[in-house]
Amino acid sequence: MNVSASFLIAAAAALALSGASQAQTAPQLPPPASVSADALGYMNTFPPAGDKLIDNSNRTRFPQTRWVLQHTRELVPTRNIRRGAASASALPRAERDLGAMVFEDDKGQKISVDQWFDSTYTDALVVLHKGRIVYERYTNGMKPETPHLLFSITKSFTGLLAAQLVAEGRIDREALVTTYVPELAESAWGDMKVKDVMDMTGAVRYREVYTDPTTEVFPYLYSSNLLPSPSGYTGPKNIYDFLRTLKKEGEHGTGFVYRTVHSEVLGWILSRVTGKHFADLMSERIWTKLGMEEDAYVMVDPVGTPLQGAGLNATARDLARFGEMLRRGGELNGQRVFDRAVIDDLRRGGDREKFKASGMTFRPGYSYHNQWWILHNADGAFEASGVNGQMLHINPAAELVIVKLSSHPIASAGPTHPLTLRAWSALAEAVRR
Amino acid sequence: MNVSASFLIAAAAALALSGASQAQTAPQLPPPASVSADALGYMNTFPPAGDKLIDNSNRTRFPQTRWVLQHTRELVPTRNIRRGAASASALPRAERDLGAMVFEDDKGQKISVDQWFDSTYTDALVVLHKGRIVYERYTNGMKPETPHLLFSITKSFTGLLAAQLVAEGRIDREALVTTYVPELAESAWGDMKVKDVMDMTGAVRYREVYTDPTTEVFPYLYSSNLLPSPSGYTGPKNIYDFLRTLKKEGEHGTGFVYRTVHSEVLGWILSRVTGKHFADLMSERIWTKLGMEEDAYVMVDPVGTPLQGAGLNATARDLARFGEMLRRGGELNGQRVFDRAVIDDLRRGGDREKFKASGMTFRPGYSYHNQWWILHNADGAFEASGVNGQMLHINPAAELVIVKLSSHPIASAGPTHPLTLRAWSALAEAVRR
Repeated sequence: MNVSASFLIAAAAALALSGASQAQTAPQLPPPASVSADALGYMNTFPPAGDKLIDNSNRTRFPQTRWVLQHTRELVPTRNIRRGAASASALPRAERDLGAMVFEDDKGQKISVDQWFDSTYTDALVVLHKGRIVYERYTNGMKPETPHLLFSITKSFTGLLAAQLVAEGRIDREALVTTYVPELAESAWGDMKVKDVMDMTGAVRYREVYTDPTTEVFPYLYSSNLLPSPSGYTGPKNIYDFLRTLKKEGEHGTGFVYRTVHSEVLGWILSRVTGKHFADLMSERIWTKLGMEEDAYVMVDPVGTPLQGAGLNATARDLARFGEMLRRGGELNGQRVFDRAVIDDLRRGGDREKFKASGMTFRPGYSYHNQWWILHNADGAFEASGVNGQMLHINPAAELVIVKLSSHPIASAGPTHPLTLRAWSALAEAVRR
Repeated sequence: MNVSASFLIAAAAALALSGASQAQTAPQLPPPASVSADALGYMNTFPPAGDKLIDNSNRTRFPQTRWVLQHTRELVPTRNIRRGAASASALPRAERDLGAMVFEDDKGQKISVDQWFDSTYTDALVVLHKGRIVYERYTNGMKPETPHLLFSITKSFTGLLAAQLVAEGRIDREALVTTYVPELAESAWGDMKVKDVMDMTGAVRYREVYTDPTTEVFPYLYSSNLLPSPSGYTGPKNIYDFLRTLKKEGEHGTGFVYRTVHSEVLGWILSRVTGKHFADLMSERIWTKLGMEEDAYVMVDPVGTPLQGAGLNATARDLARFGEMLRRGGELNGQRVFDRAVIDDLRRGGDREKFKASGMTFRPGYSYHNQWWILHNADGAFEASGVNGQMLHINPAAELVIVKLSSHPIASAGPTHPLTLRAWSALAEAVRR
């Protein structure tokens, strides 16, 4: 296979889709200000000069990802998720100087919200309290209207749509996956139930070892457009063909292991059941109903398949509107978007014992349910999360929604999550004051 | 070169960028209703089944183009042209039953506007009279909010922006191209003036012979993402590198010959002078100012270069708003978008004698100026036009703007233009009644 070692390392650093497979190392990282969009000058001349050029050869490398995560559609095919024709729904403001607020980090040091923002390569931070913007900040070239790659936050949209279709009686959690997608009969999903896809407790041999090009993550990345295919690549050329190659390993239902491929299968079920593309489902059921400010979009593979595990791009404000709807139990501005019971079930979470199989000790006490992370804390918090620092955190008790979009050099949440949990607590405490 | 004969023919049929190189033949065409989006069923299952699949292997073929021209971004990288944050500007309605109106076609037969619409593979037709929608119709899966590939209408946006920058003193029509783009010194543009780029009177060896893969159109199509590169292709991989390979042939300034590459050079000048990407210029100077309903977008090559000769996608209504602004001499809704003098100069047109060099006898009496077609008729009409039936026609005397977007199997306007001219006259007469 024609993959250079440096490229593999770059892929590991910038695009690892599993939080689990990354070590909790603390490599030497460049100062964030030195790798801002302004400092880097990517793609801002005609033609882009030398090391300022970003194309298929380097688009997954850091610090190129500082630019790429706001420009996905300029590099790969995508499909639009249209907002409605009406004006954007109001996001009232009640700003507070949260940036200067100091809290204690996971090392016992004092740190301000602004320092946390800067040191974790944040591109956008939006904090809503009782539906009002109390804090909003952008950097690294990002603006309120810029869609940002959300990576695995995509999964949580897929999972919530699936949960709603379960509530509508169109998907049966107890049914076999092959009830909906018979093409998967010979694969790992051949004897798996839908619930083991939704909660990622299905047993699939899917290894993400970025230093071993024989592991299954590579054909996933190539078949999905997440990485350009190397010259001479002969594996599957679209997501569906790739999924059919994966085999069972272990017993279904015994433990939660985070696998992006489950989200892609769930997406396949969604499209098969509704007869609609994910982009259209998202527009009809979420984007138009919430009065989003901007269109969103999703990456597609070479045959138009949406990347339902990692390909969604949206603005921070629109993601905040989505979070606010969830905080309010499924409605916003008098419009019901998801059944109350669907949100209640989501918040109750999944099996915390099974979660331990994930090895994600940096998420203590969590469970994973319907493609969402449930904190099981006193505030009833739950969240969606993507590599390189994408987060949507909802704290119902504090009436708080936090969106943090980043271009962190480390893919996994592992090294940063202890600090993230401190920040969630500090912000919840602040808005309660 | 690994290009099959059938693919070449498909490229010739579906994607020829020059109107001149197409013969005025009347091949047997399929009935339009038999190749509607509904009838074809492209890309509407998961996965797309067999001959319903559209990907890089067939995206330039007819009837696949019936679908592709409304879905460009799902196949290639693109860059967003953002509308403003405000609500869309009003497009008042004063509808009339123009569809049933009968006129005489170029063969002396009676034909209704609806029959003309259907028989020319129209996807959208919007007619404005005095700024009000008098007729609006969509088919083939298109909706008011669907961006449609505009092909060479793109050139007219590029040309108008350049003309405005000339008026602002930022581009000198009499200057050498190399004043702005020294990289072109060794190419056909090395001793060419800007005016010969804007009016396409520069002499460039650029042949579009779709049965001869050694002609210059092929590396243009490959380097621009208009066609996927065949396996083993070793030519230029982006538009700028391609432009540098073209050589002079003949004398500059002697005759108009329609060459897409001039538009790409003009685009390069625009970006170099402003320091801005075409997508941002379009957004700042046109899309936000006109209160467009939807974002537009432009195809980009593998290094992000906008396809300024053929890559713009926009909705029919937004194109109508643009046309209405031109009809009103450069302003709309109290907002001045282009200098009055720029529009006046555009309407005065170019050199009709030089136009004859084009061989476009199907455009009798026309001239080409600043990348626009000037009819030099009694009504002072002018228009933008793209292959496969894309048209923006402005008739100032009749206070008329017509947008017609199509997915016609024949690229060239040649075979259909005599009928088109009849339709323009009939519609002008109708709205005057």
